[in-house]
Amino acid sequence: MKAAAKYQIVGRGISRLDALEKVTGKATYTTDITLPGMLYAKVLRSPHPHARIIKIDTSKAEALPGVKAVLTYRNTPRVPFNAAATSTYTIPPLAAVKDQYLFDDVVRYVGDEVAAVAAVSEEIARAALDLIEVEYEILPAVYDPLEALKPEAPLLHPHCTKKNIAGDILQFGLGDIATGLAAAEIVVEATYKLPVQKQGQLETQAAVAALTGDGKLTIWSPTQTPHPTRRIVAEIFKLPLSKVRVLNPPYVGGGFGVRIGLSAKAEPIAAALALATGRPVKVVYDRQEDFIASDTRHAGYITVKLGLSKDGIFQALYMQAIMNGGAYCSWSADVPGAIGSRGLTIYRVPHSRFEGYSVYTNTTPAGACRGFGAPQPTFAVEMTVAKAAAILGIDPLELRLKNIITPGDTWVAPFPCLSSGLRECLIKGAEKIGWEKRRELAAGHAGSGRYKRGLGVAVGNHISSAFPFQTDYSNVYLSLQPDGTIQLASGVVEMGTGTKTTLAQIAAEVLEVEVEDIAVSLGDTEMVPYDVGSQASRSCYAAGMATLQAARDLKEQILTYASEKWQIPKEKLIWQKATILSRDDPGKQITLKELAADADFHNRQLATIGQNASQNALSWHAHFAEVEVDTATGSIKVIRLVAAHDMGKAINPEIVRGQIQGGAVMGLGYTLGEEITYDPQGRQLQDSYHKYMLPTAVDVPEMETIVVEAGEPTGPFGARGVGENAVAPVAPAVASAVFQATGVHFTELPLTPERVWRALLRPDCAIKN
Amino acid sequence: MKAAAKYQIVGRGISRLDALEKVTGKATYTTDITLPGMLYAKVLRSPHPHARIIKIDTSKAEALPGVKAVLTYRNTPRVPFNAAATSTYTIPPLAAVKDQYLFDDVVRYVGDEVAAVAAVSEEIARAALDLIEVEYEILPAVYDPLEALKPEAPLLHPHCTKKNIAGDILQFGLGDIATGLAAAEIVVEATYKLPVQKQGQLETQAAVAALTGDGKLTIWSPTQTPHPTRRIVAEIFKLPLSKVRVLNPPYVGGGFGVRIGLSAKAEPIAAALALATGRPVKVVYDRQEDFIASDTRHAGYITVKLGLSKDGIFQALYMQAIMNGGAYCSWSADVPGAIGSRGLTIYRVPHSRFEGYSVYTNTTPAGACRGFGAPQPTFAVEMTVAKAAAILGIDPLELRLKNIITPGDTWVAPFPCLSSGLRECLIKGAEKIGWEKRRELAAGHAGSGRYKRGLGVAVGNHISSAFPFQTDYSNVYLSLQPDGTIQLASGVVEMGTGTKTTLAQIAAEVLEVEVEDIAVSLGDTEMVPYDVGSQASRSCYAAGMATLQAARDLKEQILTYASEKWQIPKEKLIWQKATILSRDDPGKQITLKELAADADFHNRQLATIGQNASQNALSWHAHFAEVEVDTATGSIKVIRLVAAHDMGKAINPEIVRGQIQGGAVMGLGYTLGEEITYDPQGRQLQDSYHKYMLPTAVDVPEMETIVVEAGEPTGPFGARGVGENAVAPVAPAVASAVFQATGVHFTELPLTPERVWRALLRPDCAIKN
Repeated sequence: MKAAAKYQIVGRGISRLDALEKVTGKATYTTDITLPGMLYAKVLRSPHPHARIIKIDTSKAEALPGVKAVLTYRNTPRVPFNAAATSTYTIPPLAAVKDQYLFDDVVRYVGDEVAAVAAVSEEIARAALDLIEVEYEILPAVYDPLEALKPEAPLLHPHCTKKNIAGDILQFGLGDIATGLAAAEIVVEATYKLPVQKQGQLETQAAVAALTGDGKLTIWSPTQTPHPTRRIVAEIFKLPLSKVRVLNPPYVGGGFGVRIGLSAKAEPIAAALALATGRPVKVVYDRQEDFIASDTRHAGYITVKLGLSKDGIFQALYMQAIMNGGAYCSWSADVPGAIGSRGLTIYRVPHSRFEGYSVYTNTTPAGACRGFGAPQPTFAVEMTVAKAAAILGIDPLELRLKNIITPGDTWVAPFPCLSSGLRECLIKGAEKIGWEKRRELAAGHAGSGRYKRGLGVAVGNHISSAFPFQTDYSNVYLSLQPDGTIQLASGVVEMGTGTKTTLAQIAAEVLEVEVEDIAVSLGDTEMVPYDVGSQASRSCYAAGMATLQAARDLKEQILTYASEKWQIPKEKLIWQKATILSRDDPGKQITLKELAADADFHNRQLATIGQNASQNALSWHAHFAEVEVDTATGSIKVIRLVAAHDMGKAINPEIVRGQIQGGAVMGLGYTLGEEITYDPQGRQLQDSYHKYMLPTAVDVPEMETIVVEAGEPTGPFGARGVGENAVAPVAPAVASAVFQATGVHFTELPLTPERVWRALLRPDCAIKN
Repeated sequence: MKAAAKYQIVGRGISRLDALEKVTGKATYTTDITLPGMLYAKVLRSPHPHARIIKIDTSKAEALPGVKAVLTYRNTPRVPFNAAATSTYTIPPLAAVKDQYLFDDVVRYVGDEVAAVAAVSEEIARAALDLIEVEYEILPAVYDPLEALKPEAPLLHPHCTKKNIAGDILQFGLGDIATGLAAAEIVVEATYKLPVQKQGQLETQAAVAALTGDGKLTIWSPTQTPHPTRRIVAEIFKLPLSKVRVLNPPYVGGGFGVRIGLSAKAEPIAAALALATGRPVKVVYDRQEDFIASDTRHAGYITVKLGLSKDGIFQALYMQAIMNGGAYCSWSADVPGAIGSRGLTIYRVPHSRFEGYSVYTNTTPAGACRGFGAPQPTFAVEMTVAKAAAILGIDPLELRLKNIITPGDTWVAPFPCLSSGLRECLIKGAEKIGWEKRRELAAGHAGSGRYKRGLGVAVGNHISSAFPFQTDYSNVYLSLQPDGTIQLASGVVEMGTGTKTTLAQIAAEVLEVEVEDIAVSLGDTEMVPYDVGSQASRSCYAAGMATLQAARDLKEQILTYASEKWQIPKEKLIWQKATILSRDDPGKQITLKELAADADFHNRQLATIGQNASQNALSWHAHFAEVEVDTATGSIKVIRLVAAHDMGKAINPEIVRGQIQGGAVMGLGYTLGEEITYDPQGRQLQDSYHKYMLPTAVDVPEMETIVVEAGEPTGPFGARGVGENAVAPVAPAVASAVFQATGVHFTELPLTPERVWRALLRPDCAIKN
């Protein structure tokens, strides 16, 4: 006998509310906005990785007919800021590093903003850029974080108290790492080199700013975080928040972290030009600008030392991360903390220690990128665990099952682990991939012939909110409309993650209405109450919890209304399929629709504000990969990828699967080919979709997703975050499979054919499986 | 010694928040909206006052390249509706009369909608109109309501149960009118003929509709009532409210009642074309269309019988109103009730009776126009009182002071009279105009020479909300932003009445912040909670009360926050200049700004929903006019106009003065020249600004406003409505002055030179002063 479904709407894979809008091309984006008298802006960017502007002459550009304003460091606010959302309220001991100006007289990477022009057409604005005469004093440049730490390296930010270190050196852990490592029977160690990945979102950075006569700036932007973005803009222009509105237009062509806070500098550039001209200004970066001048994922070096007993019990785990922060801090003060937290919260280890920081270099600033601080440590830690398993001769699955964190364990995070389905992920994933095959491969296939096969596994976790890096809270307006439909407003955004649908499902479940009956407004600072926005995989978990709270309160208000109407105590009322019934009097019943009309007729709107400040919770995942390596070419074919994820509860399983699959594909790109590199002049070698090869449909292997629902007491209906989770475990799962297949323990990503082929030639790097 | 001001912000005549926006031409209106792929719509209108469409062929229009849709009665929803806001919830015994279709096969006035075209340009849309072939069967037409009641008159709406009567015959009163009139020593009687006035707002009716992929209609429109408009549109297209959003763009170029509910049919026409084409559609009526096809003020006939004792005590007051409703009901079922209410609530009368109704005719529909049902009865009743004063030889001021309603008196309204400053208005106004001069004029100047002078007075009242005609309630969102500024959202609109500023002042007063610190969002169905909108002079009174309630609640929340933070009971805290202090501990103090930052840091937004359902309250006014009549030409020169108004409390005295002066100028137009007339073919003879002469600056006399603040317990800081008040008493004040100057008791408006000159020739109409 099948048990009755616990929920009616939650757990249903209904189509996304924004699906038709997007697939029919009707969704509008920033670039679609046209306002009366609007000007078009273009940005002059530095051709040098590091230089001082000795002279800048904008007079010819200003004289060009149609040009309305030319801005440089000389006529824009000298207010230092940080482009990351976290700068709006970082929780101590972290501190916001404000090291950027709208324009500066020093440029620090190829692509750095030198000037901006607003003109009556794009063509004129572009022509005006060519008329700006700039004389640079070339300064020495540095591209690698280790190089940037050396005494002879140039100092990128003279005010910086610790040479080229962006923010603090973060240090935390449990127990005593020296004792732990000393006591361990075996210590496995390796240093990993991580590449620069680009978000590659479809819509380039853009903004439209309009100044109204009351001195108010309205900014349309694809920001993931309208309220924090508003705060950064207000800070730059010294405006009260009451004079700045930031909103989505309404759609956002992908986020992936690149628009948490400012969308590169699109918002303040558009705003400065609007303030200078008094006219609306649109700025839309072209693809090359988007590549070179908007944040990347942090590259860098992570060293891991794992101490174990011979029977495979983890004793000590040390991690050191030196990340490439690029030219400006952005999220660089926070990412090391995330790296350490991800690395040290997977396993139960009595002694652990993390030290990490980001280093300024003359490259594109590194910031938030889907998976925020997870792909790097997950690769490093999991490859170290793979190496340990090989050394100890313990099955890598077994080794993990012995050591993973379970609820109640002590860990480094400042919030408790209340739930984890990681064990279930491992067991179900292993079953799905057919983990037992691994032994056969070890015995036979691997080690001979041109095509070598291997199986790999990797685990990891991810946050569900931005705490403890920054404040993290959500508010939701929820109101009953006179026809019984519901209006829901939240400050998170719909950037392609299905948030609109997910929040609607949460409210619809409580109120027992259809998702279609819920009108959802997102992505604004006026239409919706305060929310730190769509970041940190928090939209469903945090804004969802505020929605749940609002829906429950609205339901109470509705029951109270019926109770007062009928003069029947509330506890004698039953809520059944959006109808309120009297327990004792069968004659008394009213549908939600009828009650809404009744309230309207009696001059009442039932409405509430849902509020939530979630502590945070970790979601869990185990990926399994089966690969075939062509030893002749070094190319890796991922044959199967099994992604088992515990996100607490899948509010919409189709959206959850979409997030897992999309994340895994992004992880595959990170694993096999995506990488931004720089030429000796500091220029990006992959500054377009043609040169930066994102995986396409043909690159995607057979992929199976397993949804595990361990439930989370602090999330709505038990849900935690899922948006970013699947990126990180792909690389170690695939690289572990390659390790089995080839015996080569790779410590550098991506696993390009060339890198694999070269490694296979080096006898020293072969380790027996 | 001057007493300390009771309020800091309330009562200050600060500049309007939208002033600079408007005077610098930056304010954007519906016509300024441009959306990707947007089409332009034009409407084909009937050239006949009454006809049946025998044949309509749109094929040639559809074949014109660039035409995307042609709509007629054959391919649009056959859903009857009423264009007035009240149709969304009329309170019984009133009933909404739904007698209109988007397009019908019968046209009922010159200008009635026959078809609409959407095309890629305005030019093509206009050209397509010429290609629509329509064959009409001409039906008999009628233009006057008395004619339309005759048995031989054509029936305009065959379903109508009472011949050509739009809605019910309204009847109400006090005591027994027959007894009262029979017992009166004198009965003064007259029948008045009132003209058609046009709102003449600067921005013509317009709308832009866009259909998004999720089936949601977004409609930008200059509506005064976004939520009710949304409900009418949802009804026509059978959509849930969750699928319709209506918002201002953001400014409205004047309302004056013409956009309460639909803006003529601009919203549903744009919506129907957007639904038909899947593309955004803009429709902007030209000035002629706006004149002929958007609602007018009700013309008609009002008969008054006033029974008095010889010493001037009112015994009985009878009113009969037969109004011209035009071709469709719109507000015609409600206006008679307003006419009766205005006429019967000025004076204390033991026996009163009102009977009234609107009659369909083949003219432009009559609807809401600033003053809603007040100018007509105020003219009729006050001219009858003037006549009575002349007959009895009692000073008209004295006669009024004897009979005006005072708080506590029984009246016909379904809400009590809690306050009235009418006596003070009369006394102060008389003093200001120098009423004692009237005797001199009566003795000397009047009656001889070419230029004759006279003084007149008239009183009246006006509502502050739409109750009891329709539901009337307001909700306001109010939230504290992280920097201590405030976000306020309300469903009323800024149509030029200063509502944005007034609401901000109310909130600023409570929270002791500057008006500039309050960001105000208005005019939307998503950004703001439900509100019946800007109508019935209710924005300040009703939405203001919701704002006050919200501000008080937010203040309590702030105090609670400080109390919890400091662990000090709330009653020991003091709120002083937006700083919270401890009564006992001088070390404890926190500014609102600091507290907001603290709450943000602790993941809290302090926010609330203010709710209000006001009963309604009447504002009071007395106008005094001094005129000079040129008996050779019949032209009237208003030399001075003194407008004494009691609106309870002037939240912003400058806005209040602006409303009084603007209303009085509209009243002057009604008095002296504005009138829409029809030629024998039913065509408006004044269908443009060039033909319909609105008063301009040169036409405005020396005008003095007196603000009386009697205070109103049900309004914010004692305020009642003021937006519409000054229109009505101008005509009787001026006509009474003309009566004194010439001896002619005019019963028909406007007092054009021709009408005055002709009357002066008729010896029968001269009555001694």
